[in-house]
Order: sequence, then C-alpha cells, then structure tokens
Amino acid sequence: MSAREGQAELARLSLNQMTTRRWSLPEAVEASARAGLGGIGVWREPLAATGVAAAAKLIRDAGLGVSSLCRGGFLTSGKPAALDDNRRAIDEAAALDAACVVLVVGGLPDGSRDLVGARARVAETVGELTPYAAEAGVRLALEPLHPMYCADRSVLSTLAQALDLAEQLDRVGVVVDTFHVWWDPDLPAQIARASGRISSYQICDWITPLPADVLLARGLPGDGHIDFAPITAAVAAAGYTGHIEVEIFNQQVWDADPDQVLAAVVERYRALGPA
Amino acid sequence: MSAREGQAELARLSLNQMTTRRWSLPEAVEASARAGLGGIGVWREPLAATGVAAAAKLIRDAGLGVSSLCRGGFLTSGKPAALDDNRRAIDEAAALDAACVVLVVGGLPDGSRDLVGARARVAETVGELTPYAAEAGVRLALEPLHPMYCADRSVLSTLAQALDLAEQLDRVGVVVDTFHVWWDPDLPAQIARASGRISSYQICDWITPLPADVLLARGLPGDGHIDFAPITAAVAAAGYTGHIEVEIFNQQVWDADPDQVLAAVVERYRALGPA
Repeated sequence: MSAREGQAELARLSLNQMTTRRWSLPEAVEASARAGLGGIGVWREPLAATGVAAAAKLIRDAGLGVSSLCRGGFLTSGKPAALDDNRRAIDEAAALDAACVVLVVGGLPDGSRDLVGARARVAETVGELTPYAAEAGVRLALEPLHPMYCADRSVLSTLAQALDLAEQLDRVGVVVDTFHVWWDPDLPAQIARASGRISSYQICDWITPLPADVLLARGLPGDGHIDFAPITAAVAAAGYTGHIEVEIFNQQVWDADPDQVLAAVVERYRALGPA
Repeated sequence: MSAREGQAELARLSLNQMTTRRWSLPEAVEASARAGLGGIGVWREPLAATGVAAAAKLIRDAGLGVSSLCRGGFLTSGKPAALDDNRRAIDEAAALDAACVVLVVGGLPDGSRDLVGARARVAETVGELTPYAAEAGVRLALEPLHPMYCADRSVLSTLAQALDLAEQLDRVGVVVDTFHVWWDPDLPAQIARASGRISSYQICDWITPLPADVLLARGLPGDGHIDFAPITAAVAAAGYTGHIEVEIFNQQVWDADPDQVLAAVVERYRALGPA
C-alpha cells in the first residue's frame, strides 16, 4: 500500500506512552507521528518532566490527538489531597485537549475490609469532581479494572458497575480495556448499554501464565487469549469512533527496543484492529 | 467452654484436605475428628491412595460428613475421557455420601480464543452428566472461579453465570467460595437468588500482594481483605445450613506443621464463622 494509505489506516491507533516507557514524551510523540499514528496516551509523570505547555505544543505540532491522560483517581482514601490531585489532572487534560482523564478509582483503604463503603466513597468523590471537570470541558472516564485488582487498585471491577455510576453523573464516561473486561459474561450487553459513554477503548491481551507481578501481566494484542474482533465490533456498534489505544505494562516489552515495540504495536493493530 | 460446647460449635466446620496436604486422608480424618470438626472435604487423588471403600468406612466411623468431593469438571476440551472421569467422580461421591461433587469447568481449550464457545460447551456437557448424577443421587456443584482463572482454569467466572446454568438443570447447585466471588458488586443479589442451590460454602481470604503463583494465592480467613460476616449472613439467609469448608492453597500453609494449620483453621473459624 502507499504511505498515505498506511497513514489513513493508522489514524485511530494511539500509543499509550507507558508501552514504550524508556522514551521521553518528546521521543514517543516524534516516533508515533513518524509511524503515522493518530494519537498518543499521555502519563502525568513524563508530562510533568516535559512541562504541560511545551508538551501540548509539541503534540499539536506533530498532528497527534491525546487519546487519554493517565491518570486520576485513587479516591477511596477520603484524603482531600486526592481530590486536589485530580483537579490538577483535569487542568492538564484541558491544556492537552485530551479526550479524557482516566480514573483508576483505588482499592480498599489501608486496613479496611469495607468494600461496600469504599465503593460508596468513589461515587461521592467522583461526583465532587464533575463540576470542576465540566467547567474545564474535560471528560472523566471511569476505568473498571480486572477483579484481581479489587483489593489494591480499583474497587470498580466491572463495566456494569462503572456504568451504574457514570449514568448518574454529567460528563462521565467509561474506559473499555480488553484486558480488564474480556472475561465478563455480561460484556456484550454492557458495551451496548455504554453507547455514547465510551471515552476510551484500549486493546491489550491476557497472557498465561500470569507473571509474578500481576501489574505487569498485560500482553501485546495477539500474544494471549483474547478474541478482539467481537469486542472491537461491539464498541463500534456502541458508536465509539475515537482512538484505539495500546497500553502494555510488561517487563519484557519495557526491556525491548522501543522502536521495535512500536513496530510490533503497528503490526498487531493492522492484524487485529478495525482495518 | 466445655469440650462438648467446643464440639457443637465446630459441627459445621469442614477441613478441605488440601489445606493440610501433607496429611494422608486417614491422618486428616483422624485429626479433624479429634479437633471436633463436623466434616471433611475430600480430594480424589488421596482418596484413590486410600481406596474409596476404606475411606468411606473410616470417615463414617470417625463421625464426619463429606462436605465436598474435589473435583470434577474440565469439560471445555470436548474430549470424551473428561465425561468418563466425571462419571467416576460421581460414583466416588455416592460411595462417600458426599454433599456434592465440585465442578471446576475448565478454561479455554489449547490454542482457542472462543470463550463464548467454551461456555456453551460447558452447558452442554454438564447437561450430559446430570442424568448419571441423578441416578447416583449425587449433587453436582458448579464453582465459579475468580475471573483471573478464566483463560486457564474456569470459563465460569461469576455466581450469576453459574446460576444461569444451574437453574436449567436438575440436581445442579453452586459453590460459593469467598476467594472467588468477594469482589463481585452483584454478590448479595446473586447469593439471594441462589436460595436452595448453594451446595457448598467455602471461606478463604484474598491476600495481597498476590504470590508469584496465583494458584497459591489463597489465605487463611482473617489474613486478607475479605469481610466474611456479610457474605456468611447472606449465605445463611439463602437457606444454606451445610458445612463451612476451609480450603487453602498456599505454599506457606503447606510448609507449616499440619497440626498447627488445623489449630489456626479452628481459631479463625471461631473468630469469623457463624458461631
């Protein structure tokens, strides 16, 4: 195919910069643009290292969209500092014109076994953030995490639960990340229900055996057990036309040459993406 | 309290023999009876080592009930040998007068990504087993496993999904194992729905960080993040009056002196059980 066809084909692909974490934000932006991607998923720590205004200019000049800002959340502790930090994330997302701020809501507070209470606190605190997000024109995106992270990362465990909350709030969407939701028997129904509320779609595979550190268990699409086509089709049928982000936490991927990782991401997207 | 009061208090407690796997079945039976427990959960491999008839007699003579026979299942491969093996498990459960045969249904077949198909095959094959189980007077118990085992151990991932299947079949119940279901936002509703269909209740904790081998991630009740009281109350409200089984897969527990492990199980049960 021609270079132009190749570029059009990749217009919806977004590299989450954590996938190539050895690159600085400017390096990831430059490489993504050169490869013809349409977007980039930005993390706050490397964003701070570059500076928000400088990063916003270089991403815009590269012709990329910001598919997500990762991340806000960690709202179960009830500490006021957590809300302040989320407001800063909203400001940054506004400066970047990001499609959303991804919220990983947090696990059980230290020493607590009150899962019902933690979930109630998430609903309250996300509700407290929504006026600020609305004023900034920023969309908050609730990310259900795989139930294996319920105790320590996210008491939001299913898409149904994320939608129960999102539907009560203004300008709050959800993230559909295949790694977190692929196992859910209720997934097709919940994706259909999410119509108009999907703020981010991420493709990432489930590999076995799980690595010793389950936070690094995410595989490149095609390396694991997930059948992507029906999920991608359901997300499209729910009206989602935004970026398709590839976010991989995996030590082997991080140890590899980032140029090769990006090439693999493009190859897998061509094989498994929506063409 | 008196010895008799202690014994009455423990009448519903059952030791799954995998918790003290260094003990043979006769050793586990003897120790459980001496400690005043009312039941034992039996695994098929040590059962075969003792012999089914001999084991049935020694368990009966010890005054213990068999809370579960572990296990049947692994039905997603479509191999006829799997059905034969399940019929043998049913025969053994009948000989032991076990409350149920626990079915761990199996993960995706090798090389397959067809989760929907695997789930459909489970429904078909469990349906094929039910006449045999009915004739033997044995109850099959579908165990939903934590979604982190969906790819490689059990495509049955939630209590709702297990009930969807059990409700269509004769003499098929479900297992409620806190380790597998504690995270589920829909758990109270599904336990209520399970009224009359709970064949086994197991208490086991969720510990963090997860060990390198997630198959050995199960913790003694009280060592982790699960709030047992509301789950135990919901199971009781659903009419379950059977044994409460403690099944721990954990290398540290297995490395410890089995007598001390059993003492710890009793202590935790006294602290957390329905008393």
